[in-house]
Amino acid sequence: MDETANGLCHIGAMTNCDTFFEEAATLLGPRGITNDTELVEPWLTDWRGRFTGRACAMASPANARELSELVRLCAKHGVPIVPQGGNSGMSGGATPDDSGRAILLSLRRMNAIREVDEESRRVTCEAGVVLQTLHEAVEAKGLRFPLTLGGKGSATVGGLISTNAGGSQVLRHGSMRALVLGLEAALADGRIFSMLTPLKKDNRGFDLKQLLIGSEGTMGIVTAATLKLLPAVAERVVVWAGLPSLRAARELLLHCEDSAGDALEGFEVMPQACLDAVLDHLPDSRSPLTERHAWYALIEVVADTASADTLRDRCETMMASAFENDLLEDAVLSASEAQAEAFWLLRESVAPAERARGPAVQHDISVPVEKMPEFVETTAPMIEAEWPGVEAVAFGHLGDGNVHYHMIAPKVKDALAWQMGPGKDISRRVHDLVTQWGGSISAEHGIGQLKREELVRLGDPVALSMLRAVKQALDPQGLLNPGKLI
Amino acid sequence: MDETANGLCHIGAMTNCDTFFEEAATLLGPRGITNDTELVEPWLTDWRGRFTGRACAMASPANARELSELVRLCAKHGVPIVPQGGNSGMSGGATPDDSGRAILLSLRRMNAIREVDEESRRVTCEAGVVLQTLHEAVEAKGLRFPLTLGGKGSATVGGLISTNAGGSQVLRHGSMRALVLGLEAALADGRIFSMLTPLKKDNRGFDLKQLLIGSEGTMGIVTAATLKLLPAVAERVVVWAGLPSLRAARELLLHCEDSAGDALEGFEVMPQACLDAVLDHLPDSRSPLTERHAWYALIEVVADTASADTLRDRCETMMASAFENDLLEDAVLSASEAQAEAFWLLRESVAPAERARGPAVQHDISVPVEKMPEFVETTAPMIEAEWPGVEAVAFGHLGDGNVHYHMIAPKVKDALAWQMGPGKDISRRVHDLVTQWGGSISAEHGIGQLKREELVRLGDPVALSMLRAVKQALDPQGLLNPGKLI
Repeated sequence: MDETANGLCHIGAMTNCDTFFEEAATLLGPRGITNDTELVEPWLTDWRGRFTGRACAMASPANARELSELVRLCAKHGVPIVPQGGNSGMSGGATPDDSGRAILLSLRRMNAIREVDEESRRVTCEAGVVLQTLHEAVEAKGLRFPLTLGGKGSATVGGLISTNAGGSQVLRHGSMRALVLGLEAALADGRIFSMLTPLKKDNRGFDLKQLLIGSEGTMGIVTAATLKLLPAVAERVVVWAGLPSLRAARELLLHCEDSAGDALEGFEVMPQACLDAVLDHLPDSRSPLTERHAWYALIEVVADTASADTLRDRCETMMASAFENDLLEDAVLSASEAQAEAFWLLRESVAPAERARGPAVQHDISVPVEKMPEFVETTAPMIEAEWPGVEAVAFGHLGDGNVHYHMIAPKVKDALAWQMGPGKDISRRVHDLVTQWGGSISAEHGIGQLKREELVRLGDPVALSMLRAVKQALDPQGLLNPGKLI
Repeated sequence: MDETANGLCHIGAMTNCDTFFEEAATLLGPRGITNDTELVEPWLTDWRGRFTGRACAMASPANARELSELVRLCAKHGVPIVPQGGNSGMSGGATPDDSGRAILLSLRRMNAIREVDEESRRVTCEAGVVLQTLHEAVEAKGLRFPLTLGGKGSATVGGLISTNAGGSQVLRHGSMRALVLGLEAALADGRIFSMLTPLKKDNRGFDLKQLLIGSEGTMGIVTAATLKLLPAVAERVVVWAGLPSLRAARELLLHCEDSAGDALEGFEVMPQACLDAVLDHLPDSRSPLTERHAWYALIEVVADTASADTLRDRCETMMASAFENDLLEDAVLSASEAQAEAFWLLRESVAPAERARGPAVQHDISVPVEKMPEFVETTAPMIEAEWPGVEAVAFGHLGDGNVHYHMIAPKVKDALAWQMGPGKDISRRVHDLVTQWGGSISAEHGIGQLKREELVRLGDPVALSMLRAVKQALDPQGLLNPGKLI
């Protein structure tokens, strides 16, 4: 195997590579660091296969103390650090560049759930804990962690915090930022910033942990967190509604917000084309409604113990009045938990079903919540007219003003050539439009390396200069996840 | 009048004072800047009379553009800037030092409510809007802004954001940080950072507006904000409960959280001594319960339209089961809105009633929510034993782990001498204890100049160095509110 192509740099650009590796190996022990190609290589490409990099080694410290010492060593030797959790990011934020200078810092060994505090409803765990493991651990205590997403089987707490992950429950509970009560992180010089103690109120200056949440490992490396938990759901009703338009979905959303208040936990939308793709893709699936509709909304209403007894009645009343007010064409309420899960399965299958349809360029965008229907209705025909044969598909989190906006390629022979050519032009066009509408080119997935140029091109210069100034202040050597975000 | 004692510096330490004033006057016009002693002097002392400073002039720009130009001018001439809203802060954060070099920057003229968006439930307003004005403006549209505090008649939106203000509704709705959807601010070089567009999701790097919220004008000057609104309250029930101990109050809080869920909006506590002081202080007031109890809890449960019909029933059930489980000694539910207001008046009168009792040193502290009863029960007797004659009184926001912890002076002849001598020692002792218990020496009121030395003495060195690094990055000349916070 060609040494320069296998992703590992044994001689590298770094002059003192061997010294660094020896010192790191002494610090971390044989389980804590490796430059074995077979072990490292799987982690040098992001899960979607978009980015591949190289690394001088992969370190897997056992705890924050070891990690802190390692970062100190990296600072001393000038070794860049690329932190990585489950490697399930969408923007290449955890993939090193191809210089081979960086060390890949895996957080996966740091996977202890330190404490589930049932009374205070919070959990303290290390950065490498996988989301699904976290869900199961707190569910066993009658609690829940109200953030979930497709990659829950691999995404880690540290990655979710570093990217301020969202998902389908953001409508009520917010993104990761809203659920982080305390944080511990290693700074660029190896010092540990420790704010795990969850104080509900603390006004000793601005909230420093906010610098780390969503900064993609560029300001510090999250090592542990204290997260907010909620009582387990006592009952939920999932409604599947058929609608004439995305605009109608927005009207229905407002109705449900008024009617269900805090009990409204999810409001997801998809057009008929998405549902068709899902039904093609999922064996034995069927549409919940007999008629076809232009758009569908999945609405989740949830009750904790306090209000479970009246939930279904309230839901029925809510949907009946929506129907009377012409806010939907048809709707069905889940009659059982199995049916609720079946409705959600349709929603969760949209992304894989869309991938199965063929090549596309994908965008993860937001605009002010109330503008989303008009944005999609205006821009989809524009894109489709400018690039004949392209199909614009929007689906997702209408309640958050955030949709995944996929542009499906026309029938082409060379998918990659299309993606790299017209696909790139389309993405720039979409990002231009989003920016004109006051939106964000990355609502959920972060910037990583995927959207870095677009952020520079379209970002507010004042905001960018603030980001850069803070980065320079906290990481003057520029060793933390270089080439990502800023 | 002695020119050096009147708070204004006409010749000052600044070599080019006259040039600066002339340029600023040209920029802002006669309404926008003054060095008239009579006009400026009232704003050079904080409302509690703890701090008095001097200023070279008071500027009152009419809008963000003027403010931006003024800040640019200050940067050019090296003139420090002390931003001020309603001058109702608790920590001297809006009072200049006594060098007379700084300009006092009043935001009070920038008081436009730009837009109340009823459908999207948010308001965009300038920094100088007074909280009570904001309340009234949104109530007129059937909405509410769910943050309130004693100083609402003078506190401004900009000041509330800069200090991340709390109040009595934090339990459910969070501090100011949780209610700021968008922000506009002038940076140290005069550039305007503009993130007023409220995107519910935006992952283009970390959330920059968090640098400004709670930073007391040291990182930038808030000029406008977009704030979250809620539907007006359809019905509320306020419960006044008598309890044997603070520990019992914590148990009752947990019961109410379980039982009422998101409907629980407030949970405030006070000991019998506080209630006695209030009843002495408030004409025609009476205790809601016939018997005396060691502690009282005021519990507010609120319904929007969705659940108003069942609110009272739920509340009665909740309190009945609390009584059956020995979680309280007695309780009364408000039978009318007038009675609800009467209960709240008792709570809101604690601070003035305590002030009327005589000299004291006050502390605004938090510890992890579940530790508060033990903290007070442990430390109050310690302080009272170490300083005989001192009475320790804790009251406030138990649900947030935050109490105002007042140490009432023994009978002394010279109150000021006591406050500056033993009072200071007591404060240091309280802050030491809070720090040992993992708490914050400033839960709500900020650091300002009042607690700056204590923050340096007790703050986490890593956190302090992060604060300083960010400050240096964003305000390299150190002109924004010097001598405050850091």
